Amino acid sequence: AKHKDRPPCNISKRKRNMEVIQVLHMKGGLGKTSYATNSCVQKKVISMTKPITEEAITKLYCSSFPTSLAIADLGCSSGPNTLFLVSELIKTVENIRQKLGLGSPEYHVLLNDLPGNDFNTIFRCLLPDFQTKLKKQVGPGLGPCLFSAFPGSFYGRLFPKNSLHFVHSSYSLQWLSQVPEGLKNNKRNIYMASTSPPNVLKAYYEQFQRDFLCFLKCRSEEVVSGGRMVLTFLGRRSEDPSSKEGCYIWELLAMALDQMVSEGLIEEEKLESFNIPQYTPSPTEVKSEVLQEGSFSIDRMDVTEVNWNVYHNELNLQGDAIYQDGGYNVAQCMRAVAEPLLVSHFGEGIIEEVFCRYREIITDRMSREKTEFVNVIVALTKKS
Amino acid sequence: AKHKDRPPCNISKRKRNMEVIQVLHMKGGLGKTSYATNSCVQKKVISMTKPITEEAITKLYCSSFPTSLAIADLGCSSGPNTLFLVSELIKTVENIRQKLGLGSPEYHVLLNDLPGNDFNTIFRCLLPDFQTKLKKQVGPGLGPCLFSAFPGSFYGRLFPKNSLHFVHSSYSLQWLSQVPEGLKNNKRNIYMASTSPPNVLKAYYEQFQRDFLCFLKCRSEEVVSGGRMVLTFLGRRSEDPSSKEGCYIWELLAMALDQMVSEGLIEEEKLESFNIPQYTPSPTEVKSEVLQEGSFSIDRMDVTEVNWNVYHNELNLQGDAIYQDGGYNVAQCMRAVAEPLLVSHFGEGIIEEVFCRYREIITDRMSREKTEFVNVIVALTKKS
Repeated sequence: AKHKDRPPCNISKRKRNMEVIQVLHMKGGLGKTSYATNSCVQKKVISMTKPITEEAITKLYCSSFPTSLAIADLGCSSGPNTLFLVSELIKTVENIRQKLGLGSPEYHVLLNDLPGNDFNTIFRCLLPDFQTKLKKQVGPGLGPCLFSAFPGSFYGRLFPKNSLHFVHSSYSLQWLSQVPEGLKNNKRNIYMASTSPPNVLKAYYEQFQRDFLCFLKCRSEEVVSGGRMVLTFLGRRSEDPSSKEGCYIWELLAMALDQMVSEGLIEEEKLESFNIPQYTPSPTEVKSEVLQEGSFSIDRMDVTEVNWNVYHNELNLQGDAIYQDGGYNVAQCMRAVAEPLLVSHFGEGIIEEVFCRYREIITDRMSREKTEFVNVIVALTKKS
Repeated sequence: AKHKDRPPCNISKRKRNMEVIQVLHMKGGLGKTSYATNSCVQKKVISMTKPITEEAITKLYCSSFPTSLAIADLGCSSGPNTLFLVSELIKTVENIRQKLGLGSPEYHVLLNDLPGNDFNTIFRCLLPDFQTKLKKQVGPGLGPCLFSAFPGSFYGRLFPKNSLHFVHSSYSLQWLSQVPEGLKNNKRNIYMASTSPPNVLKAYYEQFQRDFLCFLKCRSEEVVSGGRMVLTFLGRRSEDPSSKEGCYIWELLAMALDQMVSEGLIEEEKLESFNIPQYTPSPTEVKSEVLQEGSFSIDRMDVTEVNWNVYHNELNLQGDAIYQDGGYNVAQCMRAVAEPLLVSHFGEGIIEEVFCRYREIITDRMSREKTEFVNVIVALTKKS
């Protein structure tokens, strides 16, 4: 009876029509197949950061009017957002070059994500539509657009030396290369939390430092002098790594798991050994690694917020109840991200129940407090 | 009773364990998802052409000892052969640079095939094994190997300008970009045949000329000065385009289809409108287009033969009857190539029957005559 009035919990049946990442459980991995995070939120964020990416690509293009332009998207995923930013960037350049009466450059679009990402779908389904639309929007004179996929972790070399003009990454860099070591006493927390011991916070921060430094070193080999990067992290404003901004959404998931441990549905040891390989940095922490690495100068740094429920305050033309149910919507977004991690640690069996409970908890909290994700956006230029 | 003693015709059930291309029926296309042809034959051919590719990569590397080396494989497919040649090339270079005490270059491996090719399988399954093996074989000191996929037809631009050092393509370039126009009077032939009218032979040849010239023009933009290409075609020695060498294997398939038309299993009009988008050129025809395009010089041109049944004269350690049944083996290889084309034209329904008959016809002919594929191999250098 308790479950009667809510929409069905079996979100997976709805997945096909929704924006979720493809899930493939890779042996021995973290259970992640793509860097994608909250794809429903991501499109909103890409739109929000549009002025920043537009400014960066404009400055880049106008500094030398290159005849070829290599744009890399790191953590491209394989959903409807995959080519959204690339099309915005190309349209911006085309707009300028048409006004100046210049020929269109040759565009190289380099798409990156983990090897488990569904590149077939990008090539077979997304690219043909994208190319048709782009040609229509830009009109005649558009230069060749050459697409390629570079599978692998961006915490390692991916692209040829000095080959990239513009690097974009949205909502991917908060993923760490691995779960930090030494989290044994994080107990029933699954991420940094107010109750996490100091060594846990330190282990998370140090993993972030190693990973982001490595990221910057690799990209500094690949980006040409004067080339630019715009990186958007899920992050936080506060200098306290366990502040609610970055951690709360995971604390609520930990609550759902904790309930299930108490009811004997999950083994305590299983929960205690589960931690999320993520770090939501502050602007200061991002800046510190950029200075440390030294190859890039910071053009600007922004922090913005986006409601957990992206459809918050937006009219839904279909009047579809799902979109009005913020808890359902947020749980679904988080499911796309968290399910592979949970399945690889706990197995398939608990998933439906976890997300039923998670959703109820989220719905409850959203009705009582302001719930927002924080985005840290940094625009960088490679020094000569 | 007639069918009693032969192995089951349902080859598709065996596919999973065999070397066949992934089949996906793309809307509106030719039914081809990959340029792959006879993958069982292909590995043999790559081995046969090894001295030629080895010579080419050695000359290329030793001409300037570049610190990065971009190798493109056009028509890479997604089977066990996909990375075979690349590993041979890298090992050759590593061997030389170790002897000379030089550092390993940065390898860029650019894989191309049609967008329907199964790139996911390459990234998820083939690459990890390949990288482990290569590191083991080469030993420490191997430079970064950066992999990428470039989906699309090679009869168009694929790669950035002046980005390639070495281009390889094996058993892909005999595929035309489309079925030539004007084949209406090719009747019950499905390819060029001794009974094809002259206009049919002309239409096929002209399509080959347009396509191969376009291929050369595109590659000449992409290959650096002094860069090299080794291209292997299914071809012929004779100057007669309807000679048995290139056409016989298709004539036997046409016979199977023709039988089924006579028995009312296939509509006559359906067969008359079906033609294979392939052209098996002679060395002279290949040379003529290279001269016409003008950017490449010909280093060498070879013609070799390989038995239809690649396991011919080879011991089979498992003593597996399938490998001894040449007709089955050849029919299976051809099925991987022809099935997508047949399905997209005739539908799924006829497939099992066609390949039962095809196999019987092949077995019969192989017992009575010498049946060989002809390979035309050309090694080219981009002029400065």
